[in-house]
Amino acid sequence: MQKYLGGGAPSTPKLRHRRRTDELVPSDATKENGSHLLVDDRNKYKSMWIRTCSTLWMIGGFALIVYMGHLYICAMVVVIQILMARELFILMRKTHEERDLPGFRQLNWHFFFTAMLFVYGRILSHRLVNTVTSDVVLYQLVGSLIKYHMVICYFLYIAGFVWFILSLKKKMYKYQFGQFAWTHMILIVVFTQSSFTVANIFEGIFWFLLPAALIVINDIAAYLFGFFFGRTPLIKLSPKKTWEGFIGASVTTIISAFVLANVLGHFKWLTCPRKDLSTGWLHCDPGPLFRPEYFSLSGRVPEWFFWKQLSILPVQWHALWLGLFASIIAPFGGFFASGFKRAFKIKDFGDSIPGHGGITDRMDCQMVMAVFAYIYHQSFVIPQSLSVEMILDQILVNLTFEEQLDLYRKLGETLQEKQFGLS
Amino acid sequence: MQKYLGGGAPSTPKLRHRRRTDELVPSDATKENGSHLLVDDRNKYKSMWIRTCSTLWMIGGFALIVYMGHLYICAMVVVIQILMARELFILMRKTHEERDLPGFRQLNWHFFFTAMLFVYGRILSHRLVNTVTSDVVLYQLVGSLIKYHMVICYFLYIAGFVWFILSLKKKMYKYQFGQFAWTHMILIVVFTQSSFTVANIFEGIFWFLLPAALIVINDIAAYLFGFFFGRTPLIKLSPKKTWEGFIGASVTTIISAFVLANVLGHFKWLTCPRKDLSTGWLHCDPGPLFRPEYFSLSGRVPEWFFWKQLSILPVQWHALWLGLFASIIAPFGGFFASGFKRAFKIKDFGDSIPGHGGITDRMDCQMVMAVFAYIYHQSFVIPQSLSVEMILDQILVNLTFEEQLDLYRKLGETLQEKQFGLS
Repeated sequence: MQKYLGGGAPSTPKLRHRRRTDELVPSDATKENGSHLLVDDRNKYKSMWIRTCSTLWMIGGFALIVYMGHLYICAMVVVIQILMARELFILMRKTHEERDLPGFRQLNWHFFFTAMLFVYGRILSHRLVNTVTSDVVLYQLVGSLIKYHMVICYFLYIAGFVWFILSLKKKMYKYQFGQFAWTHMILIVVFTQSSFTVANIFEGIFWFLLPAALIVINDIAAYLFGFFFGRTPLIKLSPKKTWEGFIGASVTTIISAFVLANVLGHFKWLTCPRKDLSTGWLHCDPGPLFRPEYFSLSGRVPEWFFWKQLSILPVQWHALWLGLFASIIAPFGGFFASGFKRAFKIKDFGDSIPGHGGITDRMDCQMVMAVFAYIYHQSFVIPQSLSVEMILDQILVNLTFEEQLDLYRKLGETLQEKQFGLS
Repeated sequence: MQKYLGGGAPSTPKLRHRRRTDELVPSDATKENGSHLLVDDRNKYKSMWIRTCSTLWMIGGFALIVYMGHLYICAMVVVIQILMARELFILMRKTHEERDLPGFRQLNWHFFFTAMLFVYGRILSHRLVNTVTSDVVLYQLVGSLIKYHMVICYFLYIAGFVWFILSLKKKMYKYQFGQFAWTHMILIVVFTQSSFTVANIFEGIFWFLLPAALIVINDIAAYLFGFFFGRTPLIKLSPKKTWEGFIGASVTTIISAFVLANVLGHFKWLTCPRKDLSTGWLHCDPGPLFRPEYFSLSGRVPEWFFWKQLSILPVQWHALWLGLFASIIAPFGGFFASGFKRAFKIKDFGDSIPGHGGITDRMDCQMVMAVFAYIYHQSFVIPQSLSVEMILDQILVNLTFEEQLDLYRKLGETLQEKQFGLS
């Protein structure tokens, strides 16, 4: 990537991330701790301790934020996104080249905030409308902002685009186009993917928490299984990963998914979708997926067994799919990141979390998972009855009262025709 | 870009596009025909003749296809998209590296067709449903295909993603990641942008034809004004472009937009939106935008003047904005392409059109314009009354009959409550 962005410039200045690179992993990353697996590594207890501490801190902080509710979780996601973008923007920056391009750095952030406005506008607009219904003036203001949301974002983007072209400087073309492409890849791969998290949160914290937890569980289980039993290397890209870790983690994750879904599924504040942007307590009928079904065990278990019946939430069957994905496919997000780091000879995307590397290093699988959870939820979980609700919402939010009446009349006519056609 | 993709390989093989490059434009593209402007160029009459011939051929073929109707125009767009993708995929290919990566090339096309399925699925699904309503089995098949459209595309994408990671080969990482990034940039910048064209076509050929024609008019006018009057260079990126050409073209384009909108706006087959995928004749009420308003000129013009009143379609005022964009902002799409070619030392993206270069070279501004036309149409043209129609469509397509009845009942209740609240 250094070479990619190196382009026309004759001198190769000392790069910010090359310093990090030099200490580490010569070319194939097999020298320091890659040639032998974790099970043989002498430093492993120390590094495990560091990793455990920061993991516990992260999980603790995370649990607190989740408990505080939707808006705080979203704020956390946004902060993480900004930190990731910062980490990645810095990764490709070359101070030498930038010196001759005043203001060029800001362009990245301009695109970033435009993307943010666009993505969050789409996800949150309806909830925003539902929040401000009490104030007529605000309501209309928000309504017209939403109506022109796409145009506003488009013009911000076009402004950035024109700015980019006007900032093009002879001999810098290659560097600048490289930065442009890199910025866009970050916005798509990192920002857009991770924004699905926010959409999941508003469908019910359950749909955010379960997938995120599964990735963490899978990571930890893979680490532990690899730590104690790892012998057979899994993939050349990540020499520390082993088949033992992978399989052990898969089984653990799928079982955890099934159990965890039952636990989480009993709390209304986790299962109810949020339709506005307030922080109040949620009341809802969480739907049939979260209503326990009872299976009698009598006759199948010994007499003395104290569990006579099983209570299963239907959502647990969905959770199995999430578990399967989290343990089989999501790790490829990690492999991708490893391969990328290998290709451009960097060890970590940053160094903000002791023992883990940068924030981006921790988020690679989370992003893949968030997209899957969103698409799975949209396609298989939202029941048809809910989509009636959604369309009703859409009608009540987007149309004026007169238009609503008009729609009602037209729908009535069409349905009457159909009924005659059928009978 | 060669360097960017060059990465780890020690040898630098002869590249396909370097051959093209060598004959031409040394480093700054100012030697052969850039150092002096067109007005002084001795070869210009020959090159103008070639350019004129192929332009006329293109316009003729284009007009014929437009006359054949929506489906043929879409087919043309798809063919152009495939040709552009081919051109651009080839641009970055390195035969030397590819030899060691069997099947890697196909991955690009896998991503391309996944993107195609996704984008066109979104644009055309409702129209497809409207087309197959007569056959119950087909109707249900299409319905469930659409319901799982997102999942299907997602899994195709994930399959490509996993394939990519499994195909990663030591020492090739950098080349492969470069190809991955390049493929994604092509899909976003070229494919996704140009797909808006198809969305425009179904809103009424008018909304595709007018913007496309304005770009062509602007190009030709800029060329001609530059040819005859060009003296002052406009931007360093494209040394042949002049202020005289730019300004002359702007005025021409804005006037043309106003006039052309009047002409095109009188044909129903151009102004009616198409709601299915058939090729039949269109009947519709094209709406108030295409109903002429008459302005009397009596008293303002001399007695002998034969035009006593002006007939203006309201859509002409919208056309002015399209003209403004086509002449001021869209050229930046061309500057972007020029800058890109300059940065990576290629003259054209391909060589399929004599005198013009590759297809991508002709389409750069068209893509920017298509996106603008779409967003403009969605935000400012579609009247509210139409969005009632759209929601009604959505209800009739997506919901079962029982759900429609359910929605009707619920909407009725809500409206009644509101009415009581208001009165």
